[in-house]
Amino acid sequence: MTFFADCQARVAADLLSGRWPMVVLYALSHGPARPGELREQIGGISQKVLTETLRRLEHYGLVQRRRYAEAPPRVEYSLTKPGEDLLVPIRALGDWAAAYADRIPTGRKP
Amino acid sequence: MTFFADCQARVAADLLSGRWPMVVLYALSHGPARPGELREQIGGISQKVLTETLRRLEHYGLVQRRRYAEAPPRVEYSLTKPGEDLLVPIRALGDWAAAYADRIPTGRKP
Repeated sequence: MTFFADCQARVAADLLSGRWPMVVLYALSHGPARPGELREQIGGISQKVLTETLRRLEHYGLVQRRRYAEAPPRVEYSLTKPGEDLLVPIRALGDWAAAYADRIPTGRKP
Repeated sequence: MTFFADCQARVAADLLSGRWPMVVLYALSHGPARPGELREQIGGISQKVLTETLRRLEHYGLVQRRRYAEAPPRVEYSLTKPGEDLLVPIRALGDWAAAYADRIPTGRKP
C-alpha cells in the first residue's frame, strides 16, 4: 500500500466527500431499495439531489440500478460488492466521528 | 451512531477529502517530524501546500505543532490522539482502495 504522493486512499475519501454519498451507501446497507424508500429513510434529501447522488455512485460502480418491467415500472438500487466493502471504512469513520466530531470545528476551512 | 441526514461520518470524510490531508497524517504516523522531513518523505508536495495542509490539520485538532527554542529554531509536528485514531479509518480506506481503486473511474464527477 503506497501512501505518499500517489496515495490511493484519497480516491476513496474523494468518493465519500460531500454531504450525501456515505449517507446513501449506508441507507442501502439494509438491502435493495426504491428511490422513494431511500428518501423516506434518509430524510432531508431532495429527489433531485438523491438522483444525482445515486447516479454518481452508479458511475463509480458502488451501486447498481435495476429496472423492473412492471406497470408502473419499478426501479431499485442496491450495493455492488465494492460498495458493500466500502461500508467497512464508512463504519470506521462513523466510529471516529462518534468519538470526536463534537471537538472538531465545523464551518469554513481555515 | 446516527447515519442519515445528520450523518457525522461525513464530518470525518470531509476532513480527509482532497489530495493531501490523509497523506500528511499517514506520514506523521511514524512519529513527530519537521516540515522538511515531511516534504522529503511525501514527495511531490510544495512547501506552501504542506504548510497549508498542516495548518488545516492543526485547526481541526488532528496534529500539534511544537516549536523548540533552539538556534535556529526547530518546529515539529505530531499527531494528537484524535489524529492518531483517524489512522484506523484511513487504513481501512487504503485497504479498500488497494482492492478497488483501479476499477473506479477517475476524473470529473458525472
